[in-house]
Amino acid sequence: SSGDSTSGTQSSSIFDPLDTFQRRHVGPSPAETEKMLEYLKYDSLDTFVRDVVPANILSARDLKVSPTNGLSETELLERIGKIAAENKSARSYIGCGYTGTKTPTVIARNILECPEWYTSYTPYQPEISQGRLESLVNFQTVVTDLTGLAIANASVLDEATAAGEAMTMSLASLPMARQKRANKTYFVDSNVHPQTIAGLESRAEGFGINLKIGNALDIASVKALGDDLIGVLVQYPSTDGSIHNYTQLSEAVHELGGTVSCATDLLALTMLKPPGEFGADIAFGNAQRFGVPMGYGGPHAAFFATADKMKRKMPGRLIGVSKDRLGDPAYRLALQTREQHIRREKATSNICTAQALLANMSAMYAVYHGPAGLKAIAERVHSLAMILAEGARRMGFEVNAGTNAEGGFFDTVAIKVQDAKDVCAKITEWYGINLRVLDAQRVSITMDETVSMQDLEDILAALSAFAVQIPGRLKWKEMLVEIAEDLEITSTTPAAIPEGFKRTSAYLQHPVFNKYHSETEMLRYIHHLQSKDLSLANSMIPLGSCTMKLNATTEMLPITWPEFSSLHPFVPLDQAKGYKILIDELEADLADVTGFDAVSLQPNSGAQGEFTGLRVIRAYFKAKGEDKRDICLIPTSAHGTNPASASMCGMRVVGIKCDPKTGDLDMADLKLKAEKYKDELAAIMITYPSTYGVFEPQVKEACEVVHKFGGQVYMDGANMNAQIGLCSPGEIGADVCHLNLHKTFCIPHGGGGPGVGPIGVKSHLADFLPGHPVVPTGGKHAIAPVSAAPWGSASILPISWSYIKMMGARGLTHATKITLLNANYMAARLSEHYPILYTNAAGRCAHEFILDTRGLKETSGVEAIDIAKRLQDYGFHAPTMSWPVPNTLMIEPTESENKQELDRFCDALISIRKEIKEIEDGKMEKENNVLKNAPHTIKDLLRGGWNRSYSQEKAAYPLPYLRERKFWPTVTRVNDTYGDTNLFCACVPVENLE
Amino acid sequence: SSGDSTSGTQSSSIFDPLDTFQRRHVGPSPAETEKMLEYLKYDSLDTFVRDVVPANILSARDLKVSPTNGLSETELLERIGKIAAENKSARSYIGCGYTGTKTPTVIARNILECPEWYTSYTPYQPEISQGRLESLVNFQTVVTDLTGLAIANASVLDEATAAGEAMTMSLASLPMARQKRANKTYFVDSNVHPQTIAGLESRAEGFGINLKIGNALDIASVKALGDDLIGVLVQYPSTDGSIHNYTQLSEAVHELGGTVSCATDLLALTMLKPPGEFGADIAFGNAQRFGVPMGYGGPHAAFFATADKMKRKMPGRLIGVSKDRLGDPAYRLALQTREQHIRREKATSNICTAQALLANMSAMYAVYHGPAGLKAIAERVHSLAMILAEGARRMGFEVNAGTNAEGGFFDTVAIKVQDAKDVCAKITEWYGINLRVLDAQRVSITMDETVSMQDLEDILAALSAFAVQIPGRLKWKEMLVEIAEDLEITSTTPAAIPEGFKRTSAYLQHPVFNKYHSETEMLRYIHHLQSKDLSLANSMIPLGSCTMKLNATTEMLPITWPEFSSLHPFVPLDQAKGYKILIDELEADLADVTGFDAVSLQPNSGAQGEFTGLRVIRAYFKAKGEDKRDICLIPTSAHGTNPASASMCGMRVVGIKCDPKTGDLDMADLKLKAEKYKDELAAIMITYPSTYGVFEPQVKEACEVVHKFGGQVYMDGANMNAQIGLCSPGEIGADVCHLNLHKTFCIPHGGGGPGVGPIGVKSHLADFLPGHPVVPTGGKHAIAPVSAAPWGSASILPISWSYIKMMGARGLTHATKITLLNANYMAARLSEHYPILYTNAAGRCAHEFILDTRGLKETSGVEAIDIAKRLQDYGFHAPTMSWPVPNTLMIEPTESENKQELDRFCDALISIRKEIKEIEDGKMEKENNVLKNAPHTIKDLLRGGWNRSYSQEKAAYPLPYLRERKFWPTVTRVNDTYGDTNLFCACVPVENLE
Ligand SMILES: Cc1ncc(COP(=O)(O)O)c(C=O)c1O
Ligand SMILES: Cc1ncc(COP(=O)(O)O)c(C=O)c1O
Ligand SMILES: O=C([O-])O
Repeated sequence: SSGDSTSGTQSSSIFDPLDTFQRRHVGPSPAETEKMLEYLKYDSLDTFVRDVVPANILSARDLKVSPTNGLSETELLERIGKIAAENKSARSYIGCGYTGTKTPTVIARNILECPEWYTSYTPYQPEISQGRLESLVNFQTVVTDLTGLAIANASVLDEATAAGEAMTMSLASLPMARQKRANKTYFVDSNVHPQTIAGLESRAEGFGINLKIGNALDIASVKALGDDLIGVLVQYPSTDGSIHNYTQLSEAVHELGGTVSCATDLLALTMLKPPGEFGADIAFGNAQRFGVPMGYGGPHAAFFATADKMKRKMPGRLIGVSKDRLGDPAYRLALQTREQHIRREKATSNICTAQALLANMSAMYAVYHGPAGLKAIAERVHSLAMILAEGARRMGFEVNAGTNAEGGFFDTVAIKVQDAKDVCAKITEWYGINLRVLDAQRVSITMDETVSMQDLEDILAALSAFAVQIPGRLKWKEMLVEIAEDLEITSTTPAAIPEGFKRTSAYLQHPVFNKYHSETEMLRYIHHLQSKDLSLANSMIPLGSCTMKLNATTEMLPITWPEFSSLHPFVPLDQAKGYKILIDELEADLADVTGFDAVSLQPNSGAQGEFTGLRVIRAYFKAKGEDKRDICLIPTSAHGTNPASASMCGMRVVGIKCDPKTGDLDMADLKLKAEKYKDELAAIMITYPSTYGVFEPQVKEACEVVHKFGGQVYMDGANMNAQIGLCSPGEIGADVCHLNLHKTFCIPHGGGGPGVGPIGVKSHLADFLPGHPVVPTGGKHAIAPVSAAPWGSASILPISWSYIKMMGARGLTHATKITLLNANYMAARLSEHYPILYTNAAGRCAHEFILDTRGLKETSGVEAIDIAKRLQDYGFHAPTMSWPVPNTLMIEPTESENKQELDRFCDALISIRKEIKEIEDGKMEKENNVLKNAPHTIKDLLRGGWNRSYSQEKAAYPLPYLRERKFWPTVTRVNDTYGDTNLFCACVPVENLE
Repeated sequence: SSGDSTSGTQSSSIFDPLDTFQRRHVGPSPAETEKMLEYLKYDSLDTFVRDVVPANILSARDLKVSPTNGLSETELLERIGKIAAENKSARSYIGCGYTGTKTPTVIARNILECPEWYTSYTPYQPEISQGRLESLVNFQTVVTDLTGLAIANASVLDEATAAGEAMTMSLASLPMARQKRANKTYFVDSNVHPQTIAGLESRAEGFGINLKIGNALDIASVKALGDDLIGVLVQYPSTDGSIHNYTQLSEAVHELGGTVSCATDLLALTMLKPPGEFGADIAFGNAQRFGVPMGYGGPHAAFFATADKMKRKMPGRLIGVSKDRLGDPAYRLALQTREQHIRREKATSNICTAQALLANMSAMYAVYHGPAGLKAIAERVHSLAMILAEGARRMGFEVNAGTNAEGGFFDTVAIKVQDAKDVCAKITEWYGINLRVLDAQRVSITMDETVSMQDLEDILAALSAFAVQIPGRLKWKEMLVEIAEDLEITSTTPAAIPEGFKRTSAYLQHPVFNKYHSETEMLRYIHHLQSKDLSLANSMIPLGSCTMKLNATTEMLPITWPEFSSLHPFVPLDQAKGYKILIDELEADLADVTGFDAVSLQPNSGAQGEFTGLRVIRAYFKAKGEDKRDICLIPTSAHGTNPASASMCGMRVVGIKCDPKTGDLDMADLKLKAEKYKDELAAIMITYPSTYGVFEPQVKEACEVVHKFGGQVYMDGANMNAQIGLCSPGEIGADVCHLNLHKTFCIPHGGGGPGVGPIGVKSHLADFLPGHPVVPTGGKHAIAPVSAAPWGSASILPISWSYIKMMGARGLTHATKITLLNANYMAARLSEHYPILYTNAAGRCAHEFILDTRGLKETSGVEAIDIAKRLQDYGFHAPTMSWPVPNTLMIEPTESENKQELDRFCDALISIRKEIKEIEDGKMEKENNVLKNAPHTIKDLLRGGWNRSYSQEKAAYPLPYLRERKFWPTVTRVNDTYGDTNLFCACVPVENLE
């Protein structure tokens, strides 16, 4: 029936629950759907779909995702509650880059659990993003202050990929001749976390870098590399806990023209001399212990800082301070041109989505505790470690054997035992405590903020089972008190760091870190920043290629349950059975949806998915003895991450033209290039529907062509929202594809991350899916890991799992139809006012479309950016601007917006078109008009002496709905050029703010 | 040490956790505290305190609250987690006014768990409260639409007190002669919920009303009352589930000049003919099943509606629609004058704090589901009940025996058994299912939104253990399906209500109930309303007598845990062991803090606490044979609820003068009156510190005087925040006192409720603490209950419990000192600009003080209200206005505000004083100035044609901090008179909004 078709649900039994999810997720009601179909002159959704999706790719099969109609919200929470209960919450002192932390509840509730924070996008529109931009600048300031380096970015994906960024940045800092040396070598201290070293392997290969793992303190062995040396990576404190002096090493490396990178720990740096003060050029690490739960491996924000001289080579997003039109300070993404084009095929980094939400949490953690509070936490952690070490000694254990650490240790105590594996296994079994197997004969124990006296007693009790000598009595509490007394450790005289390693420089002196220490003030600060930002809680965010759909509350609830959030990523697998169930089901459902045979959830972003997929392809060819296949065909319309990823995999990128009329792949060019490079052809990367927002009719043929010439087909799944249930990459002919769970599968964008970019592959590639050095995962011939944690950002996987389970096969498919309908409805309404750039033969777009605003420049002087900024005055976030086609706007509504909201947005654009007409007609000045002056802030409108050719009211309330619901930008148009030439990326000095 | 004194903490061991709470709760840091002391010229907090608190009441004892230094936030959550685990989550089908419901997660997260919603105050300042005012109007519209009555208020405390309100309103609607009849009688149908009947008893006494409990369908017995009849109360559907026709009853009652009240159920009314259509004059009930968890009894919003002719007699807060200065529609508290003075000694109701937050949740539940969604839920519930009834019949049970219900039943099935108590106990024991013992031979089972097919199967299985005949097979699922088929019940043809009882009228046709059905739209609507309101997330709310302190996240977390929120209030006590632990500890700690021997947590608000305390005093005298003691002495400065409560207890109120100079009690007058009424003296009610904000030095003497003449001392503990740890009502000499947990003990004010108003008593009164008809509680000679649930609003008690446990004895005492310091610091700063009305001999106020703005009227025409409204332009909520002294402002900062915020507020008031000076100096016009035109909205400032004597900038940004942090009112000054004369209390028709 047509009711069925417009609502996507089947008639139900009286016993079925009524809190079904699909109707809450999908914006348009059946009645609205009917109206939109009518507007487009279709009698049913299915006839409409047949005009949009090419017949030869329309899938005949139904999705298997069960239950078909989805679980109700209550059922979902019951089901995932049972799964969560399968995870065991043992106490973990494993360390290795992940430790327990206390998320201040005011931060958890008002950021992590607050849709205003978690549903916003990367702050591409700074005027309506000053809140999170300020918070990210706080993050950058925390990082620069604590590392002692000049500049830091707004987070990278994790510590392992940060190491990769450091390595390739070190490479890029060499003179070109040295970059090209055949034996160029990156020296990695063996005392770096194992998952970081493994991650470096995956990065090194594509750049032709040799990795040398060795003892960096043996400076001679570093020097021996001579001009082959790219740089050195050390960990500080080291993975075994020891603290060393790297000053001489740094001098030696610098003499050789290399770069010194230092993986480090922000908490330790509150007490330790910072890397910037002993010569490190780059410092990075995991900010997790600043208030972000371990979450079985992620997401967390990795930080990344560098010396001033290298700042323009820094990967990732950098928030800078610029000025707005009125000359007031305003934050923005700095060096954006670099980001937008991501250096394409010359890229050494492909990072796009990062970890903004987690960086904000960590920044707020620093704001809440302030320098004194952070130091107190560090001192307690260090003191407990010292006391624990002494306790172990008193049981006859050799502590920190063989570390030779002049600097002692900060939080990690290494203890010599007969058989480390056996000891750890037994302590887990008998005491429910996880320690780390450091090596065959060493166990390590890492202290953190959460450790209580009871915890220490339990650890001592556990160790005593393996003690050489049992201390006189077994009252652990008394023993702890006695040791503290003997060591003269009190809360006012905590354990100290040895001279020469002690931090003497101040940090976090800016008022922002010294004002908000009561919960009341903290709440107000968080709320104040939030109120400056436009998120999905305000209005639609129709960013093309970004799929800003509902991030439902029920999907979000489980991620803060301790059963999911408290697990260390390296716990024994039998403590993570709940995760296993969830991961297996999610992989199976994603394989079903994509038409693939196997899935890896390890990559932490879409771009990482690309990199992983291409590396899998390379590994496949290598295994087949076809190493030389290294050409990657990439349409000119591709997202910048595509060529960047290819380049990082050591592939040569060959562009494929697109038809300027239809936007479709130029098949002739494809055939030509595929044939030309037939012996070297590795892959093609296609985004489908294309980045132009159309289902190209010849996609199957394109796949066939590439296959014919021996290549593999990589599909960029950023636009998967347009396919689910109607067609699939696997059936179309792709061999591998990544998905952005943070687009299609409802993980909120978090203001610029987290993300999850799993890849699906056909069976012939399954053996190569990425592995992990600590926790077995991946294929039989797994490539090196692409993330620090075995399943990437495990703790947010419940979001996508829940979405799929609540929608069911039917709901997922219905959502796809509505996403197509919404886009086509908007395109149709707008086409009477603006040209639509690309549509298919039936005049239809896919799930998004490009508004061609290029012609307006000539008639009115108006550019896409002016429309984008004017949309802010109408309470909207701009569509994707100038990508993939310069000076156009790409609109993607998603299925979650209802007709009312689509109409409101269309009305705004139509009203803006009329404003442009006024300029064209000479009724408004060409330079001084509502568009060029957009966005208008309250302050701007109230400045007094108003003498523009339009009224303040027209500026503020161009349409009636704005009188009731208006979102105000807090700064006027931000000056990009000023910001990039006067790069400043830390908290604004107070005098400049007043 | 002085560090100790300014921080309130003791030096700690290195093993102690660092996430201590007290420093997060108390605003001023030790350094700020030093500065404020310096400003006031004290060398320590303790010398300062000695200047504030009279020496003869300063307590020598330390509080016992343990641990002395408080639990850390983590420890607290661990501890309460263990307590929560002691509650058992059995499934309850007990009904009786409480049922399972599904709180839409988008509402839970964005209202119940959202500080912007839960920390706001009662919307006394409508210009900065339009969000929750709109939501409360939605609530009122839900109630009027569903009950079919003309007007509804914005919630009352619970169903039992609503019944009391209905009864006293019925009384007040009679001609005076009939009101005074000795045998005036209220007829209550015996088929009303038992806790409602019991609650009526507690209300009836003070008004001299006889209660007749009988069969209201036996119209002759009603008629027999003749002129003694006040009115009749029926329940619809009745407590046993049956549905009756009350049309003839209504006619009969109206003929006798009485009022018909109907306790009812909003969900049932989506299917049933509404009370307004069969002649009811008043309808009320519990809105809990509209999305508010049962929470072991509360808080929930009770609703209350009445016919147009009675609207000005309606108790509670009523939101009306008026116009603002620009003529735009604006919501506000209607008939406020009535509320502010609460009719004082003539009051028939004392309701003040109500259930705003819960009313908002229920309103949003209706908005989210819309009329069709609500009806679908009702139809499913009803269908399941019909199926269950048939299942029971097929097992040979007699169903709905003796109910004689022509209307059948809606959700509750009454089943005849041999021994109802035994059957229920065994079903609980064997199946973990709670049913209701309706009477000796009937068990009832109430269906609700949460019931699944599995639940029904389990109920059938449980019943089968007691079945007369076992059906052929035991596959309950098949049986259910078969019954549904036999009864022809499907989701599209649900079970119907019998003709004549069916609802035919439409409801919830307003767009607000028909637009926000996707989660995205719902989120945006909630967010939009929230953004209009000023809460503690924005700035301090220095409302005198309201104690708007931090409502900490950690305190709030447990209340949404299912272990606390899912319990039915009438479950067997062994399922609520966690609650028992928590309640016992909280009672003990409150007794310690107040210096009393016993505590009752039953009253749901401060005013209810007063009523309860006075009733306890009356019961005490009655037991002593001193019935005739009925005089209550009340200082003229008392809060309006004091005389209202006394009057409701049947007491005669005699005013005691206050010294116009000092604000202190006029001791001579007190002695005179106490002596004069010595034989009839029941009590004095004193607020301490007084409502004038001073610790009166003679309070002990006052208590002695009253005791000497045989009276009891009732202390209004609204100002308890000034006493804790320094002095206590018990030690001062009070016999009973109420506390507002929603002031002093951190339960958030929720925009006008919930509240908890426990009373503490000396041992001689303990026997009279209120009891409960279903769940044993209270004293040996318990007075009738004052709330529907045995422990009132049990589910929010974890908030106060957590606060006390985290602060510890030391933190609580320190907070008191800081609350006094903050007030005195502000008073001192402001005293250079405004007279401070009352201070003690040392020139000190208590925790609040009155700014005397009366003189300004003459010099400038400015009144307190103008300053209050101008404060909105400065981003602040006004202090308490014109109470207790007309045309003044009473400021209470609380300990949670830091010096920075206090200074900002002082700066604003000082700047306003300068603006007033400009008027005084003739620099600004007397009528058209920044104060008289305040508050200024953006729309007002942008209207164009600006021609006022001050600039738009001056209106908007009078101080520099406002450029960064400005809160904008959304309407200009609201016209109170227009609203009261054109009373309109439902959603604004759309045409009026455009
Ligand atoms: C087409 C396309 N490919 C790849 C990406 C990169 O994904 P991510 O930002 O998760 O790295 C994007 C991001 O927007 C995209 O639009
Ligand atoms: C002095 C005083 N007494 C009693 C009350 C009544 O308390 P509630 O609003 O909880 O009924 C208040 C409320 O503000 C008050 O200030
Ligand atoms: O985030 C994007 O680059 O689209």
